[in-house]
Amino acid sequence: MTMLMHLSDVSEREWADAFQKALPNHKIVTREDKFDLKEIKYLYVWKPEADAFDGLVNLEVIFSLGAGVDGIVKHPKLPQGVPVVRFVDDELTQCMTDYVVANVAMHHRQATRYKRDQTQRQWDQYYPERASTINVGIMGLGQLGADAAEKLNYLGYNVAGWARSAKNIAGIEEFTGAETFDAFLNRTDILVCLLPLTPDTTDILCMNNFKKLRRGHLPGGPCIVNAARGGHQNEDDIVTALLDGTLGAASLDVFKVEPLPSTSALWSFDNCYITPHIAAISGLDAGVRLVTEQITRFEQSGELKHVVDTKRGY
Amino acid sequence: MTMLMHLSDVSEREWADAFQKALPNHKIVTREDKFDLKEIKYLYVWKPEADAFDGLVNLEVIFSLGAGVDGIVKHPKLPQGVPVVRFVDDELTQCMTDYVVANVAMHHRQATRYKRDQTQRQWDQYYPERASTINVGIMGLGQLGADAAEKLNYLGYNVAGWARSAKNIAGIEEFTGAETFDAFLNRTDILVCLLPLTPDTTDILCMNNFKKLRRGHLPGGPCIVNAARGGHQNEDDIVTALLDGTLGAASLDVFKVEPLPSTSALWSFDNCYITPHIAAISGLDAGVRLVTEQITRFEQSGELKHVVDTKRGY
Repeated sequence: MTMLMHLSDVSEREWADAFQKALPNHKIVTREDKFDLKEIKYLYVWKPEADAFDGLVNLEVIFSLGAGVDGIVKHPKLPQGVPVVRFVDDELTQCMTDYVVANVAMHHRQATRYKRDQTQRQWDQYYPERASTINVGIMGLGQLGADAAEKLNYLGYNVAGWARSAKNIAGIEEFTGAETFDAFLNRTDILVCLLPLTPDTTDILCMNNFKKLRRGHLPGGPCIVNAARGGHQNEDDIVTALLDGTLGAASLDVFKVEPLPSTSALWSFDNCYITPHIAAISGLDAGVRLVTEQITRFEQSGELKHVVDTKRGY
Repeated sequence: MTMLMHLSDVSEREWADAFQKALPNHKIVTREDKFDLKEIKYLYVWKPEADAFDGLVNLEVIFSLGAGVDGIVKHPKLPQGVPVVRFVDDELTQCMTDYVVANVAMHHRQATRYKRDQTQRQWDQYYPERASTINVGIMGLGQLGADAAEKLNYLGYNVAGWARSAKNIAGIEEFTGAETFDAFLNRTDILVCLLPLTPDTTDILCMNNFKKLRRGHLPGGPCIVNAARGGHQNEDDIVTALLDGTLGAASLDVFKVEPLPSTSALWSFDNCYITPHIAAISGLDAGVRLVTEQITRFEQSGELKHVVDTKRGY
């Protein structure tokens, strides 16, 4: 049984060596190794290139390194009928929640305002209200959204979630379906995007929706935090909204084009918090352990967990 | 029964009006009103001036607007034998925890590093480790320290506390007494100060102690968060430590002299996060409610809660 590493921005060699140790009876290859395309049963993939699936006629399972699988399910040459397995583990979930909590708390606590005052050596005693006066809205209540919602709720924030179906998370107000979306936005001071990227959610972070966020409550204006996909955001609209005050601040970990081109206006805003798609990554240890478990189970019983619904897109 | 407002940086009139509504059978005065010093039974005080207690020969209780009472207990003219009541309520506690969580999370998530990269339009994918790899150390485990410890623990941080006596807070490693202080510092990546200001804790945030923090773990170096008193910090040492890398970053809400003089070098550091003593304040509603409860109980039964041990200093 041969598994091929097809990883962009990540060391294929490092992952291959770790998998080889964990699966000594399998053959693990990188794209630089010599192998026969026909022998590949498993593909371990991150950001597949155009030819990622070419010639893999005996492929049995596609394992995604990351939690987001849009790059795989939207691939024009994705082989039909081959299961795509997404990756979610506790480490990735914790990292994502760390990112979300840090950025929500930072905006609630008016980080931009105080840094501006500091630059001017200005002592202006504005007292932020406590967390329980702040409405956080989380789009997407999968494993990542649910965990972030739960932690923010524990910190005292008023957390609401918007999802396709009800999840019944304790303490979280849930808005379900497209018809509740405006009401969800109307009550939200800080909007967090943890949605899967689908045609329905593309460009959901746009001016039309920013204007629906609650105004007059969070000083400086409502804020957004996007840790999902660049495809969720209209970056021209974010630039406009940061300039005209429709948004007080934005934390963006993802972009339409990555790396974010140096010509992007987003770089220049002190109220835009840019991170280079590092909110959460699948750690090598967790990735190897969980995929090894999946392969072992699959070869014993044919069973796989976390298989993506490729039509739905996640 | 007359209560005098003696409040610096805060509107005495606003508080007096609110107290008058809550205590209609009492007389509430500000320093600008006409009254006889001898009629004052209660003093409601924040940052007492040199003459704060002059002539108050019939004073029965001193109520502090804030949680920190060092300005009162160290006052050279503090009348002996008059109980000093400190103020702690849920709102103040939540605000303080909000501040601590925001700043710990920001440093854990390398806010300074990414803002520097952003200024350079640089896409450098460093992946912060998850919260459970980060050791937070909280000095002071009173109501404020305990609450911050509990919330950070829930977020996954490894939280230890250092205090004079054991508090037995679930999930928190406790270091008790002066002889454990070095061990506490040695294991700490992010140091939070929520101590009362006493001769023993003055200048505790100094180079000698910064050097004992855990090095080589949190990228950029260990960080400090001071939301207690400016008297806890040696500001020259902080400047040096931020310059030479002994500290990766510092969040300071309090200063030796407030407002922080515009000549202070601290203003100029992008890895120093200055806020103008706004981490947590006693809200008017909560302050009036709790002091009204105290006065009502005192007049019925002579009982007071949260009385300060003026020798110990908190």
